[in-house]
Amino acid sequence: MRILGIDPGLSHLGYGIIDVNPNKKDMIECGLIRTNKSNSEGNRLVEIAQDLQTLVQTWHPQLASVEQFFFYRSSNTISILQVRGVILLTLASLKIPVVEFSPLQVKLTLTGFGHAHKKEVLQSIMAELGLKLPPHPDDAADALAIALTGWFHR
Amino acid sequence: MRILGIDPGLSHLGYGIIDVNPNKKDMIECGLIRTNKSNSEGNRLVEIAQDLQTLVQTWHPQLASVEQFFFYRSSNTISILQVRGVILLTLASLKIPVVEFSPLQVKLTLTGFGHAHKKEVLQSIMAELGLKLPPHPDDAADALAIALTGWFHR
Repeated sequence: MRILGIDPGLSHLGYGIIDVNPNKKDMIECGLIRTNKSNSEGNRLVEIAQDLQTLVQTWHPQLASVEQFFFYRSSNTISILQVRGVILLTLASLKIPVVEFSPLQVKLTLTGFGHAHKKEVLQSIMAELGLKLPPHPDDAADALAIALTGWFHR
Repeated sequence: MRILGIDPGLSHLGYGIIDVNPNKKDMIECGLIRTNKSNSEGNRLVEIAQDLQTLVQTWHPQLASVEQFFFYRSSNTISILQVRGVILLTLASLKIPVVEFSPLQVKLTLTGFGHAHKKEVLQSIMAELGLKLPPHPDDAADALAIALTGWFHR
C-alpha cells in the first residue's frame, strides 16, 4: 500500500511517501512544496494545489494521511487552515481517501509516548523505514511520521 | 463594474453579484451555495469550488469582495477558514482580483457606524441597490453588503 503523509503549511508543506506491507516499509520520497512569498495568498494556494496534484499523479498513493490542526500549535492558524482546505479539496477531487491524526496521536503511535521528543520520533521513523540517516528537513520527516501513523491505524 | 461579494461558510456560503457605476448600482443576483451535510468535508469543499467556478463563469465579475475572518465571530473557525482557502484558490485560479473586508469595515462603510444593527445594514443595502424588499436569506444579504463595500473602497 502506498501512503502520502502531509504536514500542512503555506510557505512550505512537508510531504512523505511510503510503500508498506505487513513485512516491509520503504520510504519512496520525502520533501517540501514551497511557495513564493512574493505572490498573493491566492496564488500561493494555487501553487500548493498544482504541486500536490502533480505529486499524486506521479506517485499514485492509495491513502493520504494529513496532520490535524490544533490551535495551540501555531501562530499561523489562519494560513495553515486555509492550506488545509486546499489540501482536502485537492485530495477529494483526485478521489484519494484521507485519514487525519493529531501530533499527539502521531507521537503516541511511533514512540508509545504522546509527549516524545523530536529525536525519539526521528529514531522511530528511521527504524521503521530502515533509514541510515534521519530524513530532513523537519517538515518532511513529520510528513513521513504522519504517513506511518496512517499505516498503523489502517 | 461587476462585483461578486462572498460570505464564506461550509454548510452554506452567501453570494451577491452587483453591477455598479458612479451613477447607478443594481443587484444582479444573490443566493447561497449549499453543501450536502452527509458528504465528507473534502467533497463539500469540492462542491463549493465547483459552484463558485460556475458562478464566476456565468456572471464574469471583475472583482471579488470576500469577508475577512475574525476568531471572535464564529464557533466554526476551522471549517470557515478551510472554505476561505478554497475560495481564495478558486478565485486566483480564475484570475479574479480579490479584496477583503472585516464585518466592522462593512458596517462602517454602509451605515457610518461600525456596530450598526443588522436592520440598519439591510436598509442601507436596499437604498443603495434600489430594492423594495430586503434581500434574503441573511448570508446572501451579507454578501451584497460585502460587494457594496468592495465598490466604495475601490
